[in-house]
Amino acid sequence: MTSSAFCPPNRVLMGPGPSDVPASVLRALAAPTIGHLDPAFLELMDEVGQMLRDVLGTDNRLTLPMSGTGSLGMETCLVNLIEPGDRVLVGVNGVFGTRMVEVAKRAGAEVTAVEADWGTAFDEAQFVKAAAGRQFKLLCVVHAETSTGVLQPLTPIADAADQVGAMLLVDAVTSLAGVPIEADEHRVDALYSGTQKCLSCPPGLAPVTFSERAESVLSSRSKPVQSWYADLNLIRNYWGSARAYHHTAPINMMYALHEALRLCVEEGLDERYARHALHGRALVAGLQAMDLQPRVEEAIRLPQLTTVAVPDGIDDAKVRQHLLQTYGLEIGGGLGPMKGTTWRIGLMGASATRRHVMLCLTALADALRAQGRQVADPVSAASDAY
Amino acid sequence: MTSSAFCPPNRVLMGPGPSDVPASVLRALAAPTIGHLDPAFLELMDEVGQMLRDVLGTDNRLTLPMSGTGSLGMETCLVNLIEPGDRVLVGVNGVFGTRMVEVAKRAGAEVTAVEADWGTAFDEAQFVKAAAGRQFKLLCVVHAETSTGVLQPLTPIADAADQVGAMLLVDAVTSLAGVPIEADEHRVDALYSGTQKCLSCPPGLAPVTFSERAESVLSSRSKPVQSWYADLNLIRNYWGSARAYHHTAPINMMYALHEALRLCVEEGLDERYARHALHGRALVAGLQAMDLQPRVEEAIRLPQLTTVAVPDGIDDAKVRQHLLQTYGLEIGGGLGPMKGTTWRIGLMGASATRRHVMLCLTALADALRAQGRQVADPVSAASDAY
Repeated sequence: MTSSAFCPPNRVLMGPGPSDVPASVLRALAAPTIGHLDPAFLELMDEVGQMLRDVLGTDNRLTLPMSGTGSLGMETCLVNLIEPGDRVLVGVNGVFGTRMVEVAKRAGAEVTAVEADWGTAFDEAQFVKAAAGRQFKLLCVVHAETSTGVLQPLTPIADAADQVGAMLLVDAVTSLAGVPIEADEHRVDALYSGTQKCLSCPPGLAPVTFSERAESVLSSRSKPVQSWYADLNLIRNYWGSARAYHHTAPINMMYALHEALRLCVEEGLDERYARHALHGRALVAGLQAMDLQPRVEEAIRLPQLTTVAVPDGIDDAKVRQHLLQTYGLEIGGGLGPMKGTTWRIGLMGASATRRHVMLCLTALADALRAQGRQVADPVSAASDAY
Repeated sequence: MTSSAFCPPNRVLMGPGPSDVPASVLRALAAPTIGHLDPAFLELMDEVGQMLRDVLGTDNRLTLPMSGTGSLGMETCLVNLIEPGDRVLVGVNGVFGTRMVEVAKRAGAEVTAVEADWGTAFDEAQFVKAAAGRQFKLLCVVHAETSTGVLQPLTPIADAADQVGAMLLVDAVTSLAGVPIEADEHRVDALYSGTQKCLSCPPGLAPVTFSERAESVLSSRSKPVQSWYADLNLIRNYWGSARAYHHTAPINMMYALHEALRLCVEEGLDERYARHALHGRALVAGLQAMDLQPRVEEAIRLPQLTTVAVPDGIDDAKVRQHLLQTYGLEIGGGLGPMKGTTWRIGLMGASATRRHVMLCLTALADALRAQGRQVADPVSAASDAY
């Protein structure tokens, strides 16, 4: 039986990613495929590497997108830096810290998980205390927790890493291009991200960057990296001057990432961060007008991903269904312990606009009223915040 | 500094992959991104799974594309089936058998490599002899060796696997949709492939399929799979009825794969194989008219990937440069021991047409004449073969 050609429904993406993809990125994606060793493609790779450095605030030579989604980025950083028995300290205050613990264990690490309440950030002392005087190889933290909406300040964590003798590994999947990242300034040794959040590129690549210190760990490993596919010792020979074939890169996804990065640089990073901050504030003002309370305190709240408590008496799934079916609008539900009690509303990249904010508030008010709730006008409150 | 928008040069892809991508696949790729848990996307996944089963000749429930390129497919099969200390038998007659040895070792396997000359295929006896009476967990073979152009008959290898008590793992990266694969009939337990060869989809996904027997190995592992990203125990919960979030799938690449599979089913698999065979024969006839000799004997020659010896006195790199610069035509050079002495000419998927055959022959004749070689007319010889 032959399937029909697929035509996606008309959606507005305001979940925890993917976000709406600009027309020029989709057009770039659809350019004719060329070879992965074509001189024109090799030039494209160089430009992608350089723009990634600009967006990440780093001079790291080893800066490239891995051929998979964000979780492959996480795995790449961990399996390349860890050898069996290495001590690793991981901050766990959401789904992605939890995942890092799991991935690090599978790489043979001796993991110390530093737990904190979901919806909070870490300070330096928590890591230092958990280290209990021992030295660690790696300290891992999530910069923007996609499950909770928390922005983790990096300065205290970099200080903690110094104190415990560790390299600093940062999950920047949801932060990249939405809030400032200064990898070199924050003494980040390894960082991974994804493309489908504030870069507004489809999912399928995972930018990573390694400092010189982290690169030297790669060079002096006693055992090969357990993953051949993610072995940066091999991959850097394809990205470096040798251009040695490793695997066939996802050519068209690289076109798209190139265009998405180009749009970031063209907009200006500061302007882009300010845009996310502006619309994030307006969204929260509108939500509060409807008595929907943010889950995260203002100082550590991500502008690009707002988590709000589902009010008592309101059916989470029905609201999201109403938004999707009536408005073609996607917002996210809660993960893990927040399932059923939290909405996650993304304003990422091309989805960070006044149109998105007002549409979401309007649709949410409508969905709440459909469940018999009295709701004040959120649009004028949001409008006042602009 | 802002980069300019990237516009790929006009190419005709006749290397070892990627192949030319049909316009409808590129168009599918550029459809607006939707969420990975959107009901419309979940339906698309089901259709992709079913079409993959059709093209692979299997009823295996666990049939899905991994979120990476073909080499991730290889790693997925090996790390899911192997536990440290398992005995694995690998046929090595080219680059990809060599790679399987490496990946299997990194998964902790005790590997026995069965070597054969590059450009030849294996028979049953070679594996049975190498097994030397021992039982193995897994026997691995490459169905279509992209480095040599050899088609490996599977029936004798399935018999060998039975004799040594092993499950059969097949690399079908270059064979899928170009020559017949009957995974169930050939008692294949695990198989991986890529999208950028005879499916004529851009690179970025790796179809895999696991038999019931292989699935039961997944369920009864004593240790978790070393790769979290490639752990099929987790991934099958996203593809199965639970739809449990694991990682964000490469949404747009899935659109493209759906369309590429649809085109295969629409053309008819037998018709597609016949088309590859027809144009492969014509290409070889034209090459032979120019005294370019195929590297592989006819009985085991891949129609979709022809390897020919670079004639004495001809500069490999200059010829390929001439083709690329003057004709926008990409063919492949040799890998490993065949570097500099072999060309690899692909007629894969949308690149398997009379236009491609005649253009390649014409351009090659031109390039050889540019190096002072007397060359007979290849086009009439190819024409006679149609």
